Amino acid sequence: MGHGTRSIRLKKNYCFGCGEENADGMHLKFSLDHERRRAICEFRLGRRYTGPPGYCHGGIIATILDEAMSKLSKFRDVIAPTSRMSVEYLRPVPLRKRLRVEAHEIRKNGRRLTRAAEILDDKGSVLARGRGVFVIVDPERVFGRGK
Amino acid sequence: MGHGTRSIRLKKNYCFGCGEENADGMHLKFSLDHERRRAICEFRLGRRYTGPPGYCHGGIIATILDEAMSKLSKFRDVIAPTSRMSVEYLRPVPLRKRLRVEAHEIRKNGRRLTRAAEILDDKGSVLARGRGVFVIVDPERVFGRGK
Repeated sequence: MGHGTRSIRLKKNYCFGCGEENADGMHLKFSLDHERRRAICEFRLGRRYTGPPGYCHGGIIATILDEAMSKLSKFRDVIAPTSRMSVEYLRPVPLRKRLRVEAHEIRKNGRRLTRAAEILDDKGSVLARGRGVFVIVDPERVFGRGK
Repeated sequence: MGHGTRSIRLKKNYCFGCGEENADGMHLKFSLDHERRRAICEFRLGRRYTGPPGYCHGGIIATILDEAMSKLSKFRDVIAPTSRMSVEYLRPVPLRKRLRVEAHEIRKNGRRLTRAAEILDDKGSVLARGRGVFVIVDPERVFGRGK
């Protein structure tokens, strides 16, 4: 569930996916390609993210895809948590290899933003694919003051 | 992506979701209700799993649902990685509270197993719902020797 850009920048970022202050998080570092309006991250997965021996856990694959799609909110400067997401696991995602995730927006329908993301290996093969619907919210209303 | 029961029990379990040997994993402990054929886990989420401040990351929610649905393979004694999964985020999932995940199988169609799971709070409200298709495989063929 993505956190947003404006109000949450004022707080420390403990996000499991990308938070610099979360010592136990994934520390995914995204760059934004403003021309193509894509969120991109290159990463390698350590052994802690194991699902089947030698390969990434399906939930971590979902985390990376969700995180990438969430980052697209920065292009709109909105807070838009994930409302629903689907993941296709096309090939096992290996640990320790160079991988890349790339996300883009497909459409906007009122407050509903439909987005897609892919995890690719260094040959450009798509290993997993995600699609999500994100809904623009007033974060104070949905999450309160963040406890 | 679920790991299975038979061959992998011989190895140490580093699964991010449930592996006892993974010091940095979630250590989810499932029980199997054989009568109702359900996989169940009670848990609390620590701060490291933050998404929006005070709440769980959507990817970790997907991880818990995937893990619960994967555990149903024990009823069949098969290896069946996740082929696709969808998650509905109904309400924010709080950190530090008592929560429960419960999974059951919906149908079997050849090697394809359709399963569902829910995360509930201690009042029984459904916070998130998952549905997945798991495909029975020969693990040596798909994952090799697990590197």
